[in-house]
Amino acid sequence: MNLPQYSDIEKAHRRIESLVHRTPVFTCSGINTLVESELYFKGENFQKVGAFKFRGACNAVFSLSEEEVEMGVVTHSSGNHGAALALAARLRGVVAHVVMPENAPEIKKTAVAGYGAQITLCEPTLEARESTLAGVVEQTGATEIHPYNNFSVISGQGTAVKELIEDYGDFDLVMTPVGGGGLLAGTALSVKQMLPKCKVTAAEPEGADDACRSFKSKTLLPSVNPRTIADGLLTALGERNFAIILDKVDDIVTVSEEKIVEAMRLIWERMKIVVEPSAAVSLAAILENKVDIRGKKVGIILSGGNLDLGKLPF
Amino acid sequence: MNLPQYSDIEKAHRRIESLVHRTPVFTCSGINTLVESELYFKGENFQKVGAFKFRGACNAVFSLSEEEVEMGVVTHSSGNHGAALALAARLRGVVAHVVMPENAPEIKKTAVAGYGAQITLCEPTLEARESTLAGVVEQTGATEIHPYNNFSVISGQGTAVKELIEDYGDFDLVMTPVGGGGLLAGTALSVKQMLPKCKVTAAEPEGADDACRSFKSKTLLPSVNPRTIADGLLTALGERNFAIILDKVDDIVTVSEEKIVEAMRLIWERMKIVVEPSAAVSLAAILENKVDIRGKKVGIILSGGNLDLGKLPF
Repeated sequence: MNLPQYSDIEKAHRRIESLVHRTPVFTCSGINTLVESELYFKGENFQKVGAFKFRGACNAVFSLSEEEVEMGVVTHSSGNHGAALALAARLRGVVAHVVMPENAPEIKKTAVAGYGAQITLCEPTLEARESTLAGVVEQTGATEIHPYNNFSVISGQGTAVKELIEDYGDFDLVMTPVGGGGLLAGTALSVKQMLPKCKVTAAEPEGADDACRSFKSKTLLPSVNPRTIADGLLTALGERNFAIILDKVDDIVTVSEEKIVEAMRLIWERMKIVVEPSAAVSLAAILENKVDIRGKKVGIILSGGNLDLGKLPF
Repeated sequence: MNLPQYSDIEKAHRRIESLVHRTPVFTCSGINTLVESELYFKGENFQKVGAFKFRGACNAVFSLSEEEVEMGVVTHSSGNHGAALALAARLRGVVAHVVMPENAPEIKKTAVAGYGAQITLCEPTLEARESTLAGVVEQTGATEIHPYNNFSVISGQGTAVKELIEDYGDFDLVMTPVGGGGLLAGTALSVKQMLPKCKVTAAEPEGADDACRSFKSKTLLPSVNPRTIADGLLTALGERNFAIILDKVDDIVTVSEEKIVEAMRLIWERMKIVVEPSAAVSLAAILENKVDIRGKKVGIILSGGNLDLGKLPF
């Protein structure tokens, strides 16, 4: 299995630097006092398309040869990766096809369509997504860009924490959410090269805990009926991601739905920024005392800010 | 009537520069495309206490002599100015007394109390506020810092747009909301000195339109049963503010409640930042075609980000 190294993240960063936003970093004295540590939030909700996913998609699309992109690119995605791929493809001047589950949030479907992608809806199961995608590939000859189990996507995602460390120096701990594992794998690769002593811990919803179970058992276990408000984390861990995570990540913890909502509301209220539930799981883990952060300097990747404001949990 | 000049804003800026945040400025290509102009949003929702009000309160508290602050400071406020005065007083090491209407949002009461102020609740009328405040002054000997009809407060509020112009250069138009008129008067003083050709237009809710009526009739008219979701704009225009506004402001327009909510949601969804309804009235005026901005470079002061997330209008 071909796995990216830190040098691939450096290459990715050079490739996409002029195409992505170097996103702002937020601190909040109120939250720091509450949790008795120093938190630095990397605001990927301010990234293009509103999520870190644009880094990976952009790196993937711009890594392909002219022949490989000629017939377009294709993916299946519950939302953010689809929008990201759509915009990356538009920037490169090629067609993007996006297979989406019917139950994806309306705002994410609109965003994907708004970036000019061709959408194909399917049943909200992994099987349906994969078979529908195979059909589109056969019909169009497009190149598949998997949302997370992809060398270039992982390399691209690792650029977010690279910027955070370049801008804010040393950290004791870096936290990310984990769904498919692209952000976590890329983050771990960057952190362990740039700051060998820094720990990497991921947070995952209790109702979609395949990454935690896989990590603890050192065996890639399937996701079983995942249910969580953090819709970006419903996907099952990828093989490539799992190999990197087993090697580089220090811990994966789970959090309750209640704490995800509480953490999300705290971020909105105190920091005045809009983040989606998936982005709040790291702070949820801190509020739930699942990680020991007292007195530490902690970097947190806020993964995105796309959600339906008409369906808030508060 | 003693009115501030631009030189007072310069003095205020030197006085408070190390105490306030130099807030970030946001642009959004999606919104720019929608309105066919170039908007720069000064994010005072990221100011300390979550609103521009901290600038004025801070300047007022730190302008006072030792004798004047010895017995503390006092004000009446529906929220943001109260929190601002509380924090400014704490930074100077003196007591703040805040008279608040009973119906002020819970989150604002909590914030004021959290900064260590003494709160006195009263009926939600201007008369009740003023008589309650007089009582507190008599009892404590505290110095009143009016929320907007105050020389130093106006000077402090004028520092927000000063930073915007220093950081982003020339503008064709600057917009602010108008309630009591402190932000608008301070903004107009700065703009007309720094960019003599730049227009200044304020937006006000239709249901609280005393500033617009006063401006058009060139007579300070009272506010009659104001009602609007933009709770920061329920206050009536101050005398000092009106004198400056008549002299320096180009136009005041009114906006519907529906457009305020639409503009607020657009800012949250597209820009991923939390702003209160009062902060959205300028964009609401643009969406409602009340100002001609096509092809122009426009500065907008986002006044604050404090609201009850449990009571959203969407």
